[in-house]
Order: sequence, then structure tokens, then C-alpha cells
Amino acid sequence: MIIMNSEATKEEIADVVEEIKKYGLKADISRGEYRTVIGLIGDESKVDFAHFAALPGVKEARGVETPYKLISKEYSKRFGLESERRVVQAGNISIGGDNLVFIAGPCTIESKPQLFRIAEEVKKAGAHILRGGIFKPRSSVHSFQGLGANGRAGAEEALKWLHDAGQKFEMPVVTEVRGETQIDLVAEYTDIMQIGARNMYDQDLLAGVARTNKPILFKRHFGAGIGEFLSFAEYIAAEGNKDIILCERGILPVGKGKDYTRYTFDLAAIPAIQKETYLPVIADPSHATGRRDLIFNMSCAAIAAGASGLMIETHYNPSEALVDAQQMITPDELKEVIDACLRIHQLIAR
Amino acid sequence: MIIMNSEATKEEIADVVEEIKKYGLKADISRGEYRTVIGLIGDESKVDFAHFAALPGVKEARGVETPYKLISKEYSKRFGLESERRVVQAGNISIGGDNLVFIAGPCTIESKPQLFRIAEEVKKAGAHILRGGIFKPRSSVHSFQGLGANGRAGAEEALKWLHDAGQKFEMPVVTEVRGETQIDLVAEYTDIMQIGARNMYDQDLLAGVARTNKPILFKRHFGAGIGEFLSFAEYIAAEGNKDIILCERGILPVGKGKDYTRYTFDLAAIPAIQKETYLPVIADPSHATGRRDLIFNMSCAAIAAGASGLMIETHYNPSEALVDAQQMITPDELKEVIDACLRIHQLIAR
Amino acid sequence: MIIMNSEATKEEIADVVEEIKKYGLKADISRGEYRTVIGLIGDESKVDFAHFAALPGVKEARGVETPYKLISKEYSKRFGLESERRVVQAGNISIGGDNLVFIAGPCTIESKPQLFRIAEEVKKAGAHILRGGIFKPRSSVHSFQGLGANGRAGAEEALKWLHDAGQKFEMPVVTEVRGETQIDLVAEYTDIMQIGARNMYDQDLLAGVARTNKPILFKRHFGAGIGEFLSFAEYIAAEGNKDIILCERGILPVGKGKDYTRYTFDLAAIPAIQKETYLPVIADPSHATGRRDLIFNMSCAAIAAGASGLMIETHYNPSEALVDAQQMITPDELKEVIDACLRIHQLIAR
Amino acid sequence: MIIMNSEATKEEIADVVEEIKKYGLKADISRGEYRTVIGLIGDESKVDFAHFAALPGVKEARGVETPYKLISKEYSKRFGLESERRVVQAGNISIGGDNLVFIAGPCTIESKPQLFRIAEEVKKAGAHILRGGIFKPRSSVHSFQGLGANGRAGAEEALKWLHDAGQKFEMPVVTEVRGETQIDLVAEYTDIMQIGARNMYDQDLLAGVARTNKPILFKRHFGAGIGEFLSFAEYIAAEGNKDIILCERGILPVGKGKDYTRYTFDLAAIPAIQKETYLPVIADPSHATGRRDLIFNMSCAAIAAGASGLMIETHYNPSEALVDAQQMITPDELKEVIDACLRIHQLIAR
Repeated sequence: MIIMNSEATKEEIADVVEEIKKYGLKADISRGEYRTVIGLIGDESKVDFAHFAALPGVKEARGVETPYKLISKEYSKRFGLESERRVVQAGNISIGGDNLVFIAGPCTIESKPQLFRIAEEVKKAGAHILRGGIFKPRSSVHSFQGLGANGRAGAEEALKWLHDAGQKFEMPVVTEVRGETQIDLVAEYTDIMQIGARNMYDQDLLAGVARTNKPILFKRHFGAGIGEFLSFAEYIAAEGNKDIILCERGILPVGKGKDYTRYTFDLAAIPAIQKETYLPVIADPSHATGRRDLIFNMSCAAIAAGASGLMIETHYNPSEALVDAQQMITPDELKEVIDACLRIHQLIAR
Repeated sequence: MIIMNSEATKEEIADVVEEIKKYGLKADISRGEYRTVIGLIGDESKVDFAHFAALPGVKEARGVETPYKLISKEYSKRFGLESERRVVQAGNISIGGDNLVFIAGPCTIESKPQLFRIAEEVKKAGAHILRGGIFKPRSSVHSFQGLGANGRAGAEEALKWLHDAGQKFEMPVVTEVRGETQIDLVAEYTDIMQIGARNMYDQDLLAGVARTNKPILFKRHFGAGIGEFLSFAEYIAAEGNKDIILCERGILPVGKGKDYTRYTFDLAAIPAIQKETYLPVIADPSHATGRRDLIFNMSCAAIAAGASGLMIETHYNPSEALVDAQQMITPDELKEVIDACLRIHQLIAR
Repeated sequence: MIIMNSEATKEEIADVVEEIKKYGLKADISRGEYRTVIGLIGDESKVDFAHFAALPGVKEARGVETPYKLISKEYSKRFGLESERRVVQAGNISIGGDNLVFIAGPCTIESKPQLFRIAEEVKKAGAHILRGGIFKPRSSVHSFQGLGANGRAGAEEALKWLHDAGQKFEMPVVTEVRGETQIDLVAEYTDIMQIGARNMYDQDLLAGVARTNKPILFKRHFGAGIGEFLSFAEYIAAEGNKDIILCERGILPVGKGKDYTRYTFDLAAIPAIQKETYLPVIADPSHATGRRDLIFNMSCAAIAAGASGLMIETHYNPSEALVDAQQMITPDELKEVIDACLRIHQLIAR
Repeated sequence: MIIMNSEATKEEIADVVEEIKKYGLKADISRGEYRTVIGLIGDESKVDFAHFAALPGVKEARGVETPYKLISKEYSKRFGLESERRVVQAGNISIGGDNLVFIAGPCTIESKPQLFRIAEEVKKAGAHILRGGIFKPRSSVHSFQGLGANGRAGAEEALKWLHDAGQKFEMPVVTEVRGETQIDLVAEYTDIMQIGARNMYDQDLLAGVARTNKPILFKRHFGAGIGEFLSFAEYIAAEGNKDIILCERGILPVGKGKDYTRYTFDLAAIPAIQKETYLPVIADPSHATGRRDLIFNMSCAAIAAGASGLMIETHYNPSEALVDAQQMITPDELKEVIDACLRIHQLIAR
């Protein structure tokens, strides 16, 4: 990190950036109210910080060990860069601010009428953002892969439905980008780009999506520790995009025998991550539990744990859905969840 | 399971029990309002249920596959034996009833004044049951093992303090029994016997503690799936003791790198277990998170998930405690936790 | 699976393929010595197999449940399609045949002299295939990312070195493809395309790499069960590319406390996978253990478990390597490993 | 650790021990060829080592941080106490010496003829030690619990059979002790006392069994890291019993979906543990894999990894066994395993 004097000039900053590039590193420039801080992106182990400290306009220069320094609350606070919690803006919805945010919609978009009916009903139930899967990551190539599998035209048609449903019912929309070649297309039609749990480690995809400069909903891989999760979020931040919404969606179950929940919902990760980073954290009880009958309780628990919002798969008739039928709830049930969560949030946010 | 006719006589029941013994099995007799159900304990794979069905007084006889049939909500409901949730009584405190129960106290009893001061303060903060470790399970033989390590006399002295503190501040008391030879001594002085996570698989200890007929606080091992946890609770029930309080206290973390929480707090296990069994389920945020700064949020989350109560390590000066200093909270903090939990419980228990 | 009569005509086969496409599915045509089998790729749950069975030239038509049917040994045997073990050919090296195959080279290519010196020395030690990382997957954006990070020109230069070293020392070469945009470039210069553990779930990358029709070295993710690993290998096979070399490289450690090995080397997965699929399986003791002092024993163990070969990171001076210094061995040590493995293989391959 | 001068008198040693007791600690006295070393057992954090260093006869006194110092190879070497590997003697069989040791027998003793027939056949196949379960740890109280469940008389009868079979076929015998109340009885009839994986954390059982001064076969819990495993072995050593045979028997599987092996066989733990401690390490491929068809390969792999021996469940007719039928092999198969292992051991032990 290189902290510039408050009176440092544009030229002095540019000179520092030039010096950084000589090491084969990139610069991340953060302008706080009172000073500018330049983060180094890449391996800084061979950087001569004493040299930087002596450059004109530089107040302080020193190495930072943590692999997620750009999104670190500690460094952000120390340098006066971010408030306690970054508020990510998607359309007119703020994520990470004072109000809870609810993202709802079908697991998978199957048809225009299906999507529009669900959009209307989740909006009425209190949801703020509309979700719908188009490029579905699936464990088996022999399972339904979403409308994104129907070539570029099929994908684009579904993306348009999503966009139009968002317009009609006044909700920003989010869908998953599974591969690098889908980035441009998805960016054209959505407000938030989702990177799914299975792709958390895909650093090229992360960088590519980051460069759209759209807000990114970034899900934790089920085999990833918290430190790893944040280190990969740093790949997004390193492209200059800090509009990252972190999402806990369950980790690998432990123990022999059948799994009573689809994954282990690691709710303590929510406040633990909030101590580490200023990024907002939401939770996905649908994938974490995989059980419709646990959504109410686990949604309430996630909010009590401190989540800034929830993503919940919703369908007017869960049992007829092509994917994830056993974990979707109805719009009526969603309304109950949202109502309870709002009241718990009020209690917690003393 | 063998369901007797409502008019079955004592003799007919005794005859069925005799027949069961011939198979080398034991009988678990449950008397519901309208009928008596006899569960078979042991391997029933070679049992001739048709033969049982033909015995006088028998209404129905059939094998049950689940390894935790005696504590199963499904079977209990089918046979009209238990209500939705069993209420375990410890002194004048009901666990699993309408009211939340808070168990608090030091990780480890270090002295009489330490215990009495904490007892007084947690009572004032709203706790219902007093905890305090005497026989401490430790990862290292070179760590402080609790006063139980000071021979029988030392253990008994600490047990008396616990008992007396419970009397003085009107709280039932609970402490852990770590080995079979400690059972009688601990039973003499405590209201609830705790079996710790590390001993969950110790079936001889389970059976021995069960036979005291005291309520048992039974903690899930950090490597155990939910099915395994319930199957070992069945070892307690098989001794005729169904006053079992199940406790979720965290499972093994997943992922590389440092652990941000001591264990993974598996909160979805709480409602999942409640669907399987009529036994009450509580949670232990202290051991699950290992972090004082997460106790408030994760306590609220556990109650939102549906827990019937919490066990929280408390100390007037956490930093001077010999064991678990980093995860204990003060009585003042406990009060905040209890207050928030009570309000959340009201919201959830619609 | 649709099994054609031995005398089925090209036209009859084409008609079946047409019918398959009507369901939105793809066809995988396998021509065995005596018959042709057409696998369905995609969700066959709504397929009317009776209709297919009635088509001209069809002998039998029926659904297959397993998510990895195309690479399944069971189905392959039943339909007489593959021998016990598929032999994957890379240049003049056979993987999965009677002889063990050793892949060696540096973790990361750092310079032309480094690579050429290592290539020469591992060849002398008995290695058959040269490895060298260019696009390095790293946990931290602040770590050295390999020469692939130096733009397309930098990547291409390193790829040429790899290609030339392979030519000079007569070894096919392999390197990892981390993102879709790298596929064409890497395919131009290498004999085998590696998909790393972190990208195992990246189905778009898998499909893209598969379509190069080069042999693919496919590594198991550290959080993946065996069934999942095979289901994702099926994504490669579904593109018509069955030249897949599976690689066990360690899974997430279990238990609290420091990890004595980097990952848990799941050696029993090797014979277990070999019972499921005809694809060859190799092992990577370097990443699995992360410890130079365990490579000898664990290489021998992997061969004893039945592996068809090993991939071992090698460097003439491990301590000066930029990445993975603690797990690389010297060419002299490699020679000892290869010698011992060859003798164990002889013993095992009775 | 307190190292005495080579000429230290008995009285001086006794004085040091007295001082140690004043701290509430116990002393572990190890007499090497040239000096005596006194290990402190318990929490030494408050010990004044400068005071000890000043006592007559003391050469050096200093604290040791590792929780498994008594069994540590590093400390043992530094103080010249143990050779590279401790050889544990059971009857006329040496475990941890130059020769591999094979322990075989039924999972569970069902009858005298069953046991004697198996004993005869495994002896002929090359086994050195006879195993047979009497007190069976089971996941379900409704499964067959072994003859140990038939009261003290039943248990004693089975123990006598085991003892007699050992005498008749000249093999030391081993069986599991599951609870503290079984210790005396089992010690009377067996040469080696086994502590099973599920009881690894049961420190009171460990201490009790250690005090019989019999060799102890100590199995790693499936949820335990290597450090934890060794820390609990230290509980045994702390009772003055260092005749401990460590056994790797598989840890919790990782990943979603069905388990292709019963547990994950952590073979790299074998050499990793051997770097830490002088205690011999064996492996149990039967429980680790749970698959008869993998025993041959995984036995060979365990020996290649460096194991000092194997424990393999054997039955003349596996399919009729009451427990673990799917993982037992026949005596003929055992012979093949032993023959291959002996040849691999020769190769490895260069």
C-alpha cells in the first residue's frame, strides 16, 4: 500500500503508478476524502518500499501480507477509504445499506409466462431483485442445462425475458455467467452478474466479469474456506471493480450417512466475513438447505446472523419446476419469510 | 414395534416381553394414552413378526428400519406416544416447552468464589441453568484438565460447589461426565448430566449415564452426521431414558487455510433434527464459533433457526479464565443476548 | 443407449441420430467391432425408448441412469465398445497401457534455460512427458501467476519453449489451460491439455478444451466426490473426446489443527475409479502431499494402488523455484522414484 | 523436559520428581544409555524452569511446546532416548522392527468353531497376530453388538476362545476394549489391547487401558487430524506406557454423492506420522475401504507408503459374517496380499 500526501498532485500519483508497473504489478487507486491510497496488485515480495517512500508526494509505503487487502476492512479503515460497509447499487436498489434486500425468482427460466408470473408474484411478496437461471451449472451433462444451452439465440431470448420482466415489475435482474464467452451477452441484459459457487475458483472468469463494471454477486464454493473465498473476491477487486456482493450458500456436509441438508449452511461465516471486509454479505438458504421446509427458519437465522439480504428460489408451483423442485417455495411463503426477516432485522439492528 | 390392543393385560404385555428376550433383544415399553407400544432394542433382522402378531393382546407387529426409532417423531406420532415435542424437566425448569432455556456459567470451575460470583451474575442476566466444567476433555494431556483431575476428593469438592451454587441461586446445574467411573459421583451432585462432543460415540458411557435416569445433555460430535448423532442418542433411549436434550455445538470446518470460526455452526441441523425426533434441541454458540465477538449474532441465529435454548460460556473476566478465554462473554453481554433471543423467539413462535 | 443391429446401415444410424436431435439431445456414436452404439447426451428422462426400439436397424433401446454412462466401464463392456482400459496416445507415449508413464517438469516455467535444463534432466531420469505451468491458478491475485500473465505474447513465448523442449528431448508436453480464451493458443503448442483441480467444475472450459480433440489430463477437484469427478469427465466425453486421463491430486484434509500434508491423497480412489471407468488414472503426489520428503513413499504407494502413471514436479534446485518450492524433488530423486515404481508395478501387474 | 547429568544419583532424580509434583504435574522418567530425561506431564506453562536447572544433578531444564512431546521423535532423538523406531513386543512378535506384521481374523467372533477355523487359516496364510471383535462399537443400538453384549460371562467365554486360539496357533491376540469397565477382563486374556477409532478421544479409557501396561493398538478417529491423533496417543504415553501401535484406518470422505469407499484411506499420514514419532504405524485397509475388491491394492499401497504392518479382516466365508461382510477377504486372498506386501517391503526397505 502506498499512501499519498493529501496535497499529492496527479503527476505524483501517476509517477508512483509508473514505478509500480516497473515491477510487473498493477495499481489500484482508491481516493478517500482526505488522501489517495495506491494498492499494489500482484506479488509485492520483491518490491522496495523504501524507494517508494522516498518518491515525491508519498506519505507512507509498506507491504501488506493479507491476500485480500483490496477488500479488507482493516486496511480500508486505516486509510479512511470506505465506511464500515460498502453499499452496492443495482438500479435503484442498495445492497449493504440499512435495508434488507431480497432476491427471488425461479431457479431456472423455463418460459416467458413462467418468468413473468413469478416476477409479478415475488414483487408483490416484497422481493427487490429478480433472479432466474439461464446458463445452469449442472453436475450431469445429462441434466437440463437451462435455456442458455439452446445456442446464442436461445440464450438471448431468455435474457430478454429476464430484462423485460425486470423492467415491467421494476426490479433489477441477476443471472449467472458460467463461462467467459457468455460475459458480453449477459452483461447486456442484466443489472447484476452472478458467479456461481462452482466457478468461484475460475480466476479468468472472475476477471472477465469484473471488467464489465457491473455489480457482481459472488458465491462461495462449497469446498472453500473463508480466507479462500475472500482471496478470490480479491481477483474481482483487482480489476478495479469493488461492487461485489458476497453470498454464503452452504459448504460440504461433514459425517457419514445421508445428508439431512443439501449442504451445511455456514451462517457464522456471515459475521466472520463482515469483520474482514467492507463488502456486503447475503445468504442463499435455498441451495444451502435444499429443503423447502427449512427455508423459513434458516432465512430468519441468516438475517439474525447479520446478512444484508437473501436470495431465495421461488415458484408458483415448485413441484413442476425442471430444476431444484424440492427447495423452492411459493410466493406466499416468500412473503411470510420476508415479513419475519424484516422484523428480526429491526430487532438486531439496534 | 409391537402395538398392543388398548385392552391388553399386564400379563399379555409381559408375555410379549418374554418372547422378545428369547431373541436376545430388550424391550422398550411406551405407554400412550390409548395403547401400549413395545419397541425392540437390538438387531431385529431375524425376528418373526408374524409370530408376534399372533400373540394375545397384540394389535400389530412389524419391523422398523430406522436406527433411531425410539426417539423418532414419526413413530411416536403414528403410535400416539408423544406430543410434537418432549418437554424435559430439570428441577423446576422445562426444556423443550414454550419458553427458551439459557444455560450459562464458566467453561471450567476454578474456585468456589469464581463459581459463585458467576452463578449470581448469570442468574441476574436471565439464565435458568448453571453450567461449569469439572472433568474437562482436553486435546492435550499437557493442558489444564479441570478440578476433576485432582482425585476423587478434588472432584467431589468442585461438584459440591456446583451443587451449592445451584441451590443458592435457584438454578438446576449441569456438568460433563467424561468417563464411566465418574458417573456415580457426578449423578450425586447434578441435575443434568452432560455428555460432551468428544464422547458422543462412547456407547458404554452413554448407557451408563442413561441409567442414572437423570436428564442428559447430549452433544453432537464434530465429525458426526445428523443420522449418526440420532443413532447414538438412541443408545440412551434404549436404556429407558428419554430425557435427552440434544445440542448442536459445531462440526469440522471445511476448506484450506486458517479457520475463522472454531467449528462450523450447523444451524440448519436444528430444524432438521426437530423434524426427525421429538427431543428438544439446543445450541452452543461458544464452542461452535470460539469467538466472543460472534456470540450475539449466532445466538440470535440459533434461536431463529428454532433452538429451544442455548448454552453459553460466561465469565466476569473472560481473559483470566484458564480455558476458552477467547470465547466467553460477560454476564452483561449475556443479558443482551438473552433479551434479543427472547424477542426473536416471540417473533418466530407465531 | 441405442444399440444398432450389426447390419444397420449408415442411413439407419443417421435416422436414429435425427430422432435423438428432435428431443434436443446430442448423439454419441461408438463403433465397436461388432456393432454400433449410440449414446444420448442430455436429459433423457422424457425419451420414448419404445419408439426408438421400433426404428429400423435398432436392436435395443433403453435409458441409462448413471451420469457418467459414456465413460462407464460397465456400459462399455456390455456393448463391447472398449477393452478393459482405454489407452490414450500422446505422441509416441501410451497412457493406460502396459507401461507406467511418468510426467515431470517444473511447477512453473520461469525461463527458457530453466525449462531446458529440467527437461534434459527429467528425460535422463526416465520421464516420458514434460510438464510446465504457464497459466498458473493461484489462491492469491498477489502471487506470481506464471508467464501466461504476461499478455498473449509472453504466454506464447513460454508455450514455444515448452514445445521446443519437448521436441528436443523427445517428450510430448502438457500444460494447464485455465480459461476459455487460452484454449486455442495452448492447443497450438502442446500434446496434452491439462484442466486443473480448481477448474474441474467449469463445464464450459471442459467442453471447449474437449473440442480441440487433444488428450486431456483432467484433475479431480479437492472438494469433489468420485461420482462428481466422473460426471464432469463426462462433459468432456460428451463432446466426442474420450482421450481423458484422470488424475487424483488430493482432497480436502479432515480434522482440526495444522495439516501435515497439503491435501489428503485419496489413493483408494484410483482402483475405485478404475472399477467404474475404462479411462486411465494417474496420480500427482506433489500437490497431494505438498512435501518433498513424502514423494518417494507416496509415489510407490500410488503405483501399488494401481495408478497408470505419475505427475511429479521436478526442479534441479527446488528451493529457488518461484512456486511450490517445498514440494519439488530433484531429477536424481525422480530417478529413484521411477526405478522403485517400475519394480513395484512389475510386482503388482501379475 | 529436565535432562539429568550422567552421574545424577537416584536421590537427585527423586528430588526433581518431588519438585515436579509440587506443580500438580506428573513425571515421565526415561532412562537412556547415557542420561536420564524427566518429562513433565500436565500444564507446564507456570513451571519455573530456571529453578529446576539449578537443582543438583540437573544438566538442563526447559519447556516443550508440542502436545505430544513424550512420543516425539525429535525430542527422543535430541535426548538420545529412543532409536529411530520403537519396536513394540507382543509375545514373540515385534511390531515396528525389520519385519512386517500382519494382524488377521474375523471382524467379530461369532462362535468357537468360527474363530478356530479362521485362526488356523490365517496362520497358514502368514498372519502373525490374531484379531477378533467381542465388544463391537456399532452405529446402531439395533445392530449385533458382539458376544461382549452377552453379559460378563458371555464376554469372558469369547475372550477365552480368543486366548485359546492364540495359544493353539501360536499367535498373540488382540481385541477392542470399548469401555472402562471392560479393561480388566480384556487385559486378562489378550496380548494387545485395541482402542477403536470411535473411542480415540476417550481420554479416561485411554489412561485406563494404558495402565494395564499391555501394548496398545490405537486407531485414529475418522474426524481427527494427525496432530490430534498424536496428542491423544500422548494420553497413553503419559501413563508410562509407550508400547503404542498407531493405526490409520480411514477418515471422513469429502464431497457430495455416494461414497465409493467407506472412508478415505489417508496413506500419506503413515510417513507423515513416522516423521513425528518413533512409534510404529500400521494400517487397516478393511475399514478404510470397506470393499473386499480394493484390499489387495490398498494393502500394497499401505506397505509402499511405509506401514509396519496391516490389520485385515478375514473370514473363510465373508458373506455369512454378521458384521462387515462386504469388506472381509478369504484366507487365500490374505495369502496373496501378504506375499505381495512382503515383496514390496523388500523393495522399499532399501
